[in-house]
Amino acid sequence: MPWPANISVQPGSIPITADFAISVSGAGAKDPRVTFAVDQIWPRLARQTGQFIRPHLLPTSEGATLTIVVEQRDHKPPQRLGDDERYSLEAADGRVRIAADYPLGALRGIETFLQAVQQNTNATGSTNAASPGFAISNLQIHDEPRFSWRGLSLDVSRHFIPAEEVKRTIDGLAAVKLNVLHWHLSDDQGFRVESKRYPRLQQYGSNGQYYTQAEIRDVIAYARDHGVRIVPEFDMPGHATSWMPAYPMLAARTGSFQIAPGFGILSDLMDPAKESTYRFLNNFVGEMAKLFPDEYFHIGGDEVAPRQWNENPRIQAFMKKHHITDAKALQVYFNQRLLKIVEKHGKRMEGWDEVLQPDLPKSVIIQSWRGQESLWQAAREGYKGILSAGYYLDLMRPASYHYEIDPLVLPPERKALLERQNKPIPAPLTPEEQKNILGGEAAMWEELADAENLDAKLWPRLAAIAERFWSPQSVTDLNSMYARLAPVNRWLEWLGLTQRSNLELMRQRLAGSMDYAVLDRFASILEPVKGYSRGAGRYQTNTPLNRLVDSIPPESNAARQFRDAVEAYLAQPAAQRNSDQLREHLTRWAEDAREVRPILQTNSLLTENLPAADAVAILCQTGTEALLSLDAATAGANPRDSAWKQRSTAAVQDASTRKGDLLIQIAPGIAKLVDAVTPAQ
Amino acid sequence: MPWPANISVQPGSIPITADFAISVSGAGAKDPRVTFAVDQIWPRLARQTGQFIRPHLLPTSEGATLTIVVEQRDHKPPQRLGDDERYSLEAADGRVRIAADYPLGALRGIETFLQAVQQNTNATGSTNAASPGFAISNLQIHDEPRFSWRGLSLDVSRHFIPAEEVKRTIDGLAAVKLNVLHWHLSDDQGFRVESKRYPRLQQYGSNGQYYTQAEIRDVIAYARDHGVRIVPEFDMPGHATSWMPAYPMLAARTGSFQIAPGFGILSDLMDPAKESTYRFLNNFVGEMAKLFPDEYFHIGGDEVAPRQWNENPRIQAFMKKHHITDAKALQVYFNQRLLKIVEKHGKRMEGWDEVLQPDLPKSVIIQSWRGQESLWQAAREGYKGILSAGYYLDLMRPASYHYEIDPLVLPPERKALLERQNKPIPAPLTPEEQKNILGGEAAMWEELADAENLDAKLWPRLAAIAERFWSPQSVTDLNSMYARLAPVNRWLEWLGLTQRSNLELMRQRLAGSMDYAVLDRFASILEPVKGYSRGAGRYQTNTPLNRLVDSIPPESNAARQFRDAVEAYLAQPAAQRNSDQLREHLTRWAEDAREVRPILQTNSLLTENLPAADAVAILCQTGTEALLSLDAATAGANPRDSAWKQRSTAAVQDASTRKGDLLIQIAPGIAKLVDAVTPAQ
Repeated sequence: MPWPANISVQPGSIPITADFAISVSGAGAKDPRVTFAVDQIWPRLARQTGQFIRPHLLPTSEGATLTIVVEQRDHKPPQRLGDDERYSLEAADGRVRIAADYPLGALRGIETFLQAVQQNTNATGSTNAASPGFAISNLQIHDEPRFSWRGLSLDVSRHFIPAEEVKRTIDGLAAVKLNVLHWHLSDDQGFRVESKRYPRLQQYGSNGQYYTQAEIRDVIAYARDHGVRIVPEFDMPGHATSWMPAYPMLAARTGSFQIAPGFGILSDLMDPAKESTYRFLNNFVGEMAKLFPDEYFHIGGDEVAPRQWNENPRIQAFMKKHHITDAKALQVYFNQRLLKIVEKHGKRMEGWDEVLQPDLPKSVIIQSWRGQESLWQAAREGYKGILSAGYYLDLMRPASYHYEIDPLVLPPERKALLERQNKPIPAPLTPEEQKNILGGEAAMWEELADAENLDAKLWPRLAAIAERFWSPQSVTDLNSMYARLAPVNRWLEWLGLTQRSNLELMRQRLAGSMDYAVLDRFASILEPVKGYSRGAGRYQTNTPLNRLVDSIPPESNAARQFRDAVEAYLAQPAAQRNSDQLREHLTRWAEDAREVRPILQTNSLLTENLPAADAVAILCQTGTEALLSLDAATAGANPRDSAWKQRSTAAVQDASTRKGDLLIQIAPGIAKLVDAVTPAQ
Repeated sequence: MPWPANISVQPGSIPITADFAISVSGAGAKDPRVTFAVDQIWPRLARQTGQFIRPHLLPTSEGATLTIVVEQRDHKPPQRLGDDERYSLEAADGRVRIAADYPLGALRGIETFLQAVQQNTNATGSTNAASPGFAISNLQIHDEPRFSWRGLSLDVSRHFIPAEEVKRTIDGLAAVKLNVLHWHLSDDQGFRVESKRYPRLQQYGSNGQYYTQAEIRDVIAYARDHGVRIVPEFDMPGHATSWMPAYPMLAARTGSFQIAPGFGILSDLMDPAKESTYRFLNNFVGEMAKLFPDEYFHIGGDEVAPRQWNENPRIQAFMKKHHITDAKALQVYFNQRLLKIVEKHGKRMEGWDEVLQPDLPKSVIIQSWRGQESLWQAAREGYKGILSAGYYLDLMRPASYHYEIDPLVLPPERKALLERQNKPIPAPLTPEEQKNILGGEAAMWEELADAENLDAKLWPRLAAIAERFWSPQSVTDLNSMYARLAPVNRWLEWLGLTQRSNLELMRQRLAGSMDYAVLDRFASILEPVKGYSRGAGRYQTNTPLNRLVDSIPPESNAARQFRDAVEAYLAQPAAQRNSDQLREHLTRWAEDAREVRPILQTNSLLTENLPAADAVAILCQTGTEALLSLDAATAGANPRDSAWKQRSTAAVQDASTRKGDLLIQIAPGIAKLVDAVTPAQ
């Protein structure tokens, strides 16, 4: 994962043993990225296989298990948009061979190789049963990405993410062949970069939580070694409160400022009507343009609440004088000035949807949080853009949801809505226009997450999104995706990612001295509420994120598998239905809900979850009754009347609503079961 | 844990919230160890509580939640044996206060404080139900260690343990108030330290796996900040094969040498009959004495197989000339020479039991792997010593086993054996002689462990041993120990220790694409075989340690709890016996054994464990039958005849034997149940 553009698997496999050796050749072999990636193969294979695999680099391909050929040295740093990432991987006749024209391709191929090393199984004829251990199947892969911009936008302002965790995230990005980390470095809640020119920015704007320039450089070098570009974002003129405690003169209002303790679209804006604002930004952007080598520079530009501009007489006078008709036009003016500054310092500008206004030069890249229509509109006008709408990981949607979003396809629900509203359906982009869609970026906003559970918010869902960006458009099968997502998720853990282990620690912390295994089982069918319904407005940046909702994954595998099993059950002819397995699940979950009650009752941080336990008990009871009534063997003996159906439908409906910040995700499956019961009489 | 020397708990508690603050005062407040420990309190509390606790240091105690008073600056580095570690901890009236005469005491007190911060529960009257979160109970502690030398001997030769893991181990040592890391740096399988004077030592003796001197210094500084001494050991004249590939002239035989790939008491020895040996050692010890600041220097001295000395005519001639009667005496000669070298470079010498020979100066410290009798003998002769026998963590014994070993008490089985053999029972040491017992050291030998599962071999058992070394001799209750060990084990995980998480990863790796939850449950009642019975002789240093036996803890909590529950059940009057819970366990384990079978069958690394699954099935079946026959409600309906008893006894006996390298630890409990059944007729 991501699934390669072309792959064919042959019978047989190649064992990967302790004497595993590598040879690297070609003009690109000395590229530092290749050297770094090759150096990582041994320890990563050692961890993946538990064998004492130690560096064994051969000058020629003689005797090597893995041959890596990199034809050309290519591109100097920094890595650029569109750099060639193609590679081929062949495993046959006891040898593995990765070939790439350029270093980046070698990096991508190495990840594919490592992911393909799996345990030998005894059962299938195609693997070597006599050699217990690990192997790679004989196969041929020719691979290249569908999109050239495949990123993650990471908010480190609302809750700070230390450099160590950012590097760990880069490990994950590279593993699933993402190539951009869009670093959202400033927002209302914190300014996270050391400025030497304006050190008060971090002193007054970060509560001490910021990256030094040395750390930034270290992260950039780390990313480069992993074939990942770092695109910095400094959000302006809104989402900029954290600049103002140090530099109130940047603000559109007077008075004193503090870093925002809460979340939302705040009212403070930069002042676009003062020359001093642009002088400041010119110096600041100049400094940051040197610090961040990437050719792109993201200026944010989203969610400007215009009140302060509209209510400031000086700004109004400025607008009048310059024939600027409204706040929107004033932001256009601000962006035009900013664009000149950004370009003066040798960068291309990138911004969110809102920066797309008449007269915007075509060189600016549009990042769309609004959706395909907005993005396509820009593409038709000749702008290049990337899609982020539909890929917001903070909204706690399942992997399948994100996986089905395609930058080049209008989501079916959206299409249906437009049809219902008799609105025109946008035509698909022409092949020429499609070239303006560079790719997409997942986004992780940190209002309700922090470094402790970041990994669990990102992984494994981000791997599914990575496949959307890399693999051919035709790779869309959800069952295949989920079947591959689980092992990829485990594979990512060998990189040190903590999506599972940190949540376990958090649940242990919650359980305190009590039995956390019970809490784990109880939590396994729960999910956080979706979208914005948890209500970041109820939180401040220092509100502890140490509740049950913070310590469970966005998606419950157990609940999803139960829902699938219910559908399979109901799809069977009535005479063949056997619900033993489904009922066993329900029995266990009911038991968990019963056993977890004393823990929830005693534990001050868990008491709020008692209604969830009660609802689970009701759901399991109702589901069991429905199944006995639907089962071939017991249907006759367990008739349900319409009063039961009415009562049960209401009970399931109630249990399906949020319990605190939690959803019980077996509820939809149980609703289907109740619905399928035909009442007697 | 370790349980304090004096503690009293009062009703009420003090909430630990995000505005937690600290003040530090006293002449010792500026000690770098105190500064370091205080700096760690905030992030550790943040992790332990999930609250955004950020540094908040107050110049005075005004408003502080925690006041730390350190009276004196004391001891300069290096920390010395016997440095004062006393402290008091008081929590009352909304304030916490740690007081210590010296910095080390403050470090110990801070660990106690952190361990005492626990989740507020709702149920007990003594905690604040209205404030969900974390708190410390009102209490008073006056604490000091029983022994001054409380260590871990860590073998990094047989499998290398990288510096990062050594530092993580030091985190754990400090947390449970151990104060010595005895670093076993050279052995037959690897020489692990960079020598600048003799760089070929590490070049030819380590396969590239060694610590640079910079790393060594870094680890020493880290240990010092944690109040832990680092005592280096270079094992001589045996266990020294890894010196010889580089310097064959050190050896008692001629020919070529390689690092030992296997384990055991090997035949290669240093040559004590050559002056050049002592010149070399003088230079080497001189270099290492500078690198390692501790006052003690461990020269090993154990397990000398004398054949090479006995068979070498030159050495025999040397012995004759110097009136050295046998190999033992030759080792005495070698040790005397080595002692002079060690002392010349300003160090005190330490060695294993074997170095204790007539004429050994009283300044040498004896580390006893042989047991109390050997140690006491030395103490009676005026030598100072520490006990390691009984604390070997590589032998996979339960925490209770180690916990019951006391340096000042002859183990009951040993006493019984001596009685049976009509041998004299050694008298207890007099109070004066007891002073010669400095403490003890757990030992972790790495033949069958490596960095991946090191933590699981150490923790939590090492915490129980730490309690033995620190707490009063009277603290011996096993139930209390186990009840406290579980939460301490979880608490240690917040330091980054991986005893649980890494084993989980290893079992996931084993499961491959299959359901690892089933494998986890199956493994939960298994333990590795005990003592030396796994047979390190069957292994080489590069044999993968990636099997099921490598990925389970030394002690199964589930199995221990089952055995306890069986005893409680059998202790009840027959008319009141109810085995519902016991049978539920057996039913689940039987189910796990059934469900895990297809995984074991398919998986090349797990197939060897099929007999264990079969044995679990038999045990659960037999246990259930026995219980139904013993239960008050069903006894009459489930009579067992003597044929059943005979058959079942044999079956349980067979299931109790090792299955591969595994033991099924519910077997003893089930044997008791079968034994309790009175056959009908």
